[in-house]
Amino acid sequence: MGSLLGTATAVDAFLGDDALLEAMVATEVALLRAAERAALVPAGCGDALASAVREHPVDPATLADGTTAAGNPVPALVKALLAVVPEQVRPWVHHGATSQDVLDTALMLLAARACDTTLADLDAACAAASAQADRHRDTLQVGRTLGQQAVPTTFGVTAAGWALGLHAARLALRRVRHDGLAVQLGGAAGTLGVYGAAGPAVVAGLAEELGLAAPAAPWHTERSRVRDLAAALGSVVAAAGKVATDVVALSATEVGEVSEGGGEGHGGSSAMPHKRNPVTSVLVRGAALRAPGLVGTLYAASLQEHQRAVGGWHAEWQPLLELLSLAGGAAARTAEILSGLRVDAARMAATLDGARPAVMAEQLSTALKPRVGRGEAQRLVAAALVAGAEDDVVAHLVRSGTGLSEAEIRTALDPRSTTAACAGIVDRTLRVVADARP
Amino acid sequence: MGSLLGTATAVDAFLGDDALLEAMVATEVALLRAAERAALVPAGCGDALASAVREHPVDPATLADGTTAAGNPVPALVKALLAVVPEQVRPWVHHGATSQDVLDTALMLLAARACDTTLADLDAACAAASAQADRHRDTLQVGRTLGQQAVPTTFGVTAAGWALGLHAARLALRRVRHDGLAVQLGGAAGTLGVYGAAGPAVVAGLAEELGLAAPAAPWHTERSRVRDLAAALGSVVAAAGKVATDVVALSATEVGEVSEGGGEGHGGSSAMPHKRNPVTSVLVRGAALRAPGLVGTLYAASLQEHQRAVGGWHAEWQPLLELLSLAGGAAARTAEILSGLRVDAARMAATLDGARPAVMAEQLSTALKPRVGRGEAQRLVAAALVAGAEDDVVAHLVRSGTGLSEAEIRTALDPRSTTAACAGIVDRTLRVVADARP
Amino acid sequence: MGSLLGTATAVDAFLGDDALLEAMVATEVALLRAAERAALVPAGCGDALASAVREHPVDPATLADGTTAAGNPVPALVKALLAVVPEQVRPWVHHGATSQDVLDTALMLLAARACDTTLADLDAACAAASAQADRHRDTLQVGRTLGQQAVPTTFGVTAAGWALGLHAARLALRRVRHDGLAVQLGGAAGTLGVYGAAGPAVVAGLAEELGLAAPAAPWHTERSRVRDLAAALGSVVAAAGKVATDVVALSATEVGEVSEGGGEGHGGSSAMPHKRNPVTSVLVRGAALRAPGLVGTLYAASLQEHQRAVGGWHAEWQPLLELLSLAGGAAARTAEILSGLRVDAARMAATLDGARPAVMAEQLSTALKPRVGRGEAQRLVAAALVAGAEDDVVAHLVRSGTGLSEAEIRTALDPRSTTAACAGIVDRTLRVVADARP
Amino acid sequence: MGSLLGTATAVDAFLGDDALLEAMVATEVALLRAAERAALVPAGCGDALASAVREHPVDPATLADGTTAAGNPVPALVKALLAVVPEQVRPWVHHGATSQDVLDTALMLLAARACDTTLADLDAACAAASAQADRHRDTLQVGRTLGQQAVPTTFGVTAAGWALGLHAARLALRRVRHDGLAVQLGGAAGTLGVYGAAGPAVVAGLAEELGLAAPAAPWHTERSRVRDLAAALGSVVAAAGKVATDVVALSATEVGEVSEGGGEGHGGSSAMPHKRNPVTSVLVRGAALRAPGLVGTLYAASLQEHQRAVGGWHAEWQPLLELLSLAGGAAARTAEILSGLRVDAARMAATLDGARPAVMAEQLSTALKPRVGRGEAQRLVAAALVAGAEDDVVAHLVRSGTGLSEAEIRTALDPRSTTAACAGIVDRTLRVVADARP
Repeated sequence: MGSLLGTATAVDAFLGDDALLEAMVATEVALLRAAERAALVPAGCGDALASAVREHPVDPATLADGTTAAGNPVPALVKALLAVVPEQVRPWVHHGATSQDVLDTALMLLAARACDTTLADLDAACAAASAQADRHRDTLQVGRTLGQQAVPTTFGVTAAGWALGLHAARLALRRVRHDGLAVQLGGAAGTLGVYGAAGPAVVAGLAEELGLAAPAAPWHTERSRVRDLAAALGSVVAAAGKVATDVVALSATEVGEVSEGGGEGHGGSSAMPHKRNPVTSVLVRGAALRAPGLVGTLYAASLQEHQRAVGGWHAEWQPLLELLSLAGGAAARTAEILSGLRVDAARMAATLDGARPAVMAEQLSTALKPRVGRGEAQRLVAAALVAGAEDDVVAHLVRSGTGLSEAEIRTALDPRSTTAACAGIVDRTLRVVADARP
Repeated sequence: MGSLLGTATAVDAFLGDDALLEAMVATEVALLRAAERAALVPAGCGDALASAVREHPVDPATLADGTTAAGNPVPALVKALLAVVPEQVRPWVHHGATSQDVLDTALMLLAARACDTTLADLDAACAAASAQADRHRDTLQVGRTLGQQAVPTTFGVTAAGWALGLHAARLALRRVRHDGLAVQLGGAAGTLGVYGAAGPAVVAGLAEELGLAAPAAPWHTERSRVRDLAAALGSVVAAAGKVATDVVALSATEVGEVSEGGGEGHGGSSAMPHKRNPVTSVLVRGAALRAPGLVGTLYAASLQEHQRAVGGWHAEWQPLLELLSLAGGAAARTAEILSGLRVDAARMAATLDGARPAVMAEQLSTALKPRVGRGEAQRLVAAALVAGAEDDVVAHLVRSGTGLSEAEIRTALDPRSTTAACAGIVDRTLRVVADARP
Repeated sequence: MGSLLGTATAVDAFLGDDALLEAMVATEVALLRAAERAALVPAGCGDALASAVREHPVDPATLADGTTAAGNPVPALVKALLAVVPEQVRPWVHHGATSQDVLDTALMLLAARACDTTLADLDAACAAASAQADRHRDTLQVGRTLGQQAVPTTFGVTAAGWALGLHAARLALRRVRHDGLAVQLGGAAGTLGVYGAAGPAVVAGLAEELGLAAPAAPWHTERSRVRDLAAALGSVVAAAGKVATDVVALSATEVGEVSEGGGEGHGGSSAMPHKRNPVTSVLVRGAALRAPGLVGTLYAASLQEHQRAVGGWHAEWQPLLELLSLAGGAAARTAEILSGLRVDAARMAATLDGARPAVMAEQLSTALKPRVGRGEAQRLVAAALVAGAEDDVVAHLVRSGTGLSEAEIRTALDPRSTTAACAGIVDRTLRVVADARP
Repeated sequence: MGSLLGTATAVDAFLGDDALLEAMVATEVALLRAAERAALVPAGCGDALASAVREHPVDPATLADGTTAAGNPVPALVKALLAVVPEQVRPWVHHGATSQDVLDTALMLLAARACDTTLADLDAACAAASAQADRHRDTLQVGRTLGQQAVPTTFGVTAAGWALGLHAARLALRRVRHDGLAVQLGGAAGTLGVYGAAGPAVVAGLAEELGLAAPAAPWHTERSRVRDLAAALGSVVAAAGKVATDVVALSATEVGEVSEGGGEGHGGSSAMPHKRNPVTSVLVRGAALRAPGLVGTLYAASLQEHQRAVGGWHAEWQPLLELLSLAGGAAARTAEILSGLRVDAARMAATLDGARPAVMAEQLSTALKPRVGRGEAQRLVAAALVAGAEDDVVAHLVRSGTGLSEAEIRTALDPRSTTAACAGIVDRTLRVVADARP
């Protein structure tokens, strides 16, 4: 539903019906191999299933029908597998497993692949944000609070904030990728009952076959893994969304400090050739408005009853796939936005210049307050700024007899007097973001 | 993404890529016809476009690529239409419209069709709930509060509550269907600018062509229509979810008062032949756990900037389609659950009988309190109930010398003494639910 | 918790502990009076309770402790009432009711009062938005899409959109106020069991005493009333949030087309005297970011089990009170914002003028396309706009030999050529918004 | 608002107005001390402020008014502090800080205290869950899937799942507590502008004074710390909610396998003395239904514009305080539930016995399938189970001539044949949960 509207990115190749089907089959094959290693199943069953499916691929369409009947696609998948394996393998297909084992494990496989792609794109996005921060360490920009020009900052600090947000999300997603994504195997009620004492060995074998973590216990209704994945994916989208929010705001016609790259025609409108829409950022923001509801849903769905939930498990599937898609798309798009971003440092400088001397008020007050007191300093500054132009403000303040020299006043009116810490902020950020490379 | 997991119902046929493409084309055709009626476009353009597309259908795959580039599928659609229409029609395709006009209107068309199906299923579900309430007007059942057996009720009242919830959702969805689903047409910034003074006539013509309401003003960033639709769809799912929640609880092995119909094999497990899972209810509950997050997302997305949102509009598409799908599926499944529900009135009676006389405590206290006071009544009853069996309780209370006769005591221990209002509740409910048929 | 952070408005007086306590007491008194009218309780009990509480007011602090023990404040309230009523009234206090009856009904009373205030503020906000639309029917403004200047619009149309959104929310809230807010009375399991056949009469009497609607059946676990209230309140906040979003955007330093009124010092910063923060709009946007999660929570909580929910009911209380507070605050603040809004029509005009002739591109193409074809028109316009100034663009196009006269070109470059429908949009909006006064 | 409904626990003492006010004052004092250490402010200012406030405590009521005017309580706080400090300290109060710095840092202080309490309660809850798992390592229980009795499990495995969920939440909260909770200091636009090159030293000093982490850069609009805190708190509530969900389900009258402890009167109803409501679990579930919406809101609010958000920051306050309260309450209550839980092992055994031999179907099929094939095994088992009693089933299967001996059949019908892995699951869980003690 809605692929016309889906604005797909590379990650979506890991999340479609084909990928899910392949992952479920891989899980069934790996389960047989793990059971063979535990001597619960005759040798060769796993290979036999694998080659049978290679020769007679399962048709996704038949599964979709089965999903409606059984509530999940696994029973229909097992039936389809039984139809193609050799007779002697039939007793062992899906041995000791329940539908949830196969679907949960397959979804974790999809998540692992999607996370790997997303992490690579996050690396690129972090690197691009760091590079922008590095390049614009000294690029003055007016800081804006509540939409109003406030005091000077640097675009380096702005980009450093983007880098830190993306980096925090990257750390969280890495942790989940390596510790959180585990196989699920428990059988009908999470006891590994059919495997007898060999149960834990089968779990370990399955994890090894599939390259996922082995859990201490089945997690059929203990869904912290799903929640943690949701939280990390949501943070990826949110960190990307912060970048996109700023890019949209800074590329507003009236601001014009940055614009998306992307070459001729990117964000263009045939009817309005003057427009250059920040379309990639808009798509990221669209994702960022959807992700919180999906995170909340996955938390809500995790209140699962007894040994199999009456709805909560089913409620996880689509939101999880969507979050994986949104996070992957947001990471890829943010890497693209940040690496191609056109920064108009001259416009930033001009805007800041136009905003002076008003935006230097706090700095002026700070210089004055040790001499004339807090309230008087603020009153003097407010009165002086009415004068408008810098020279008039200086003249006004010199006349006020505060004891502050003209040179001191001019220093306080210089934006650089307020950005002394900015390069250091950028430097510390670059170290933090760089240090954490795996 | 995830159609293997989608457990589709009939409504999904109105919500797929094909349906959306058809609705967008229908919107472009209707727009031409409306513009012709306003003499803004040469006669015959609409028919020419319609027949061109009939002969050369647009390939959805080409649009999906375009969606990624432009952020929505309409520019690629217009390009595809321009490729097939006669030369003299080309200037007029998409005349005066913007992408959002076409996509919003197309989504409203999809919503209208989905709502019609959903409303029909809600009618069936209301009727089935009413029929259960009617049939079981006098079927005693133990009422359960916080999971504990509390006092007697009737299954008729239980089913009446289901009917009222479904009915309230039906009323809300009907209202939205008839007043809320409107065409969107405004042009680049919602001024109908290209049409000059004829703008309102084009809007009215478009609405007439498509069978949707005509809005007082373009609603490109005034999204109350989307919110109201979301709220009504969410209520459909929630009302269905209440039914499913109760059906799951009442069909627990230990309760066993109802079970889903559905014939041989429904909810069965090949490995556990004794199980009869309430799978349809579980699917409805799965939907009910997802819908609130989608409703919240559509409310959140409605904070749309200026004359076109920087993300909020994009954030609506998938959640809206999903809610339409969930609501349609929930309505259809609830009609199926309620019309096929097997009610074990004997088990209900046996359970209530086993819960007596304890569950009559409140009634006993009520009978006693005018004679012995509130606190003493509660103490006496608690003490008497320790006796356990009904005859012992009666003997204990007679001995207590409260002045209540054995007959009065036995009346207070009879469940029917507490369900005198139940048939009336059912009757009023049936009237309310029946009266509101359109 | 958090009243320091609560930024209270008038509505909060109806939502605090005192108001809730008073409403619970009023419910207990009204229940006695209703039971008296049904001859279930000796005459005078209601009056006796009312005067006892008048003389010995209940201390909220004692109830708060009881809430923790029992999970809700009603048992402690009943105990407190029993301690002050005359002996002969004691058996009848809370007669036949359960805690949920009293708390649900009291919350509906609070909701009714809060809605009345909110509706009055919505009326003021609608009127103020309408007045702005009326006053600025012909005030040109540049329309902005995706943050980019697009084509001309009028501020009248912008304000008309605000009016329509507020009006839609008002209609929804009115409907809920009058039909949805009902007393809840059912007794331990929703059967009115203690009242016997007189149950419905007691419900009707209670509703009459309290000025709320009488439901067809108890709604202890049929929560459509709560959902509908949540949806309407959420729409109030969202409609207000749209206004605030636009006001914040239009009052950005670089845009400067509107500013909040509020007199000297409103939105000022002592350290940055040049700032004039849109603080009221920021508070409304803060509310608008919180409301969707609360709406979603109330939908999610409505999946209530059997005859009393295991958590869902408890989950409603705070979110409902918060939504009532947010909606009331948002309505009051939006009325304030809109009635005090300073509109800088000259700045709007100057900005639009500066954006010309680029923002007239679509209009130019529309004029050209019947003569030179769609693609050629767009190419010609794009090429001509490179020239920059209007006279140069005109000269360029005249030279191009399209057959369009200079006068026709100048007309297409005139913003008024694209706003012909705007006054009509405003007029229709004013009629819709005015017609619906109750 | 709503403290009558708040069902407070110990954590709430750290989250009220008094605590917030104290934390804001502590932040202002610590800021002065940090600035002194950086030689930006005369020595003694911090101590002077601290003693001035000790002598003349700030009245919370005056701040609440200020919050409404300024949109946050800090300007009014600064004004109140200025009124009580000695003249020479006045210029330095709040030196270089902005309101957000103080409020964010104060909220982090509150969060730190609340997290410490919550972590202690989580330790207790983990220990209690582990103890239950240890004690009931071999207590047989029927596993339930989709509400239906499925196959045997042990209550030890059930409790082990609870322990793992609580433990995962504990790890996440610990990580956030130690790395995530940092001071915020940036000044008007996050540049530390007023401090010049000494900015980072002031940040480090502030962090040291307050016992919070020092961030690499100001995080005024980079809100990953708030998101991570929200995610961890949400997981605490969800893990507790899983326990509560199972406790409610297992203490249903018809199941009766566990009940909450709590002594005489806990969960009792005066009107229905037979009831023993799982009220503590119901409160936890109430929290668990609210938390996901709050988590989602904090994610949604984190999309913050430029150098100060237009609403997103304000939207964080209440949800964050509420989540801290819900998580603290849920942890404390879950420790109480788990340490007092009454487990009726005899009822568990009786229920499982009553469910046999049906619930041994899968085990029987597993024993048969190597001999007769998969489908035939399932058919034989289904047919045999119709016989009902165990001896009849055995007889039926012996007669069927499958080659399985009576002893083998009886083994397959013994629940212990399916729980061989359960003790191991418990052991591994206990190790994981114990190992991670700090």
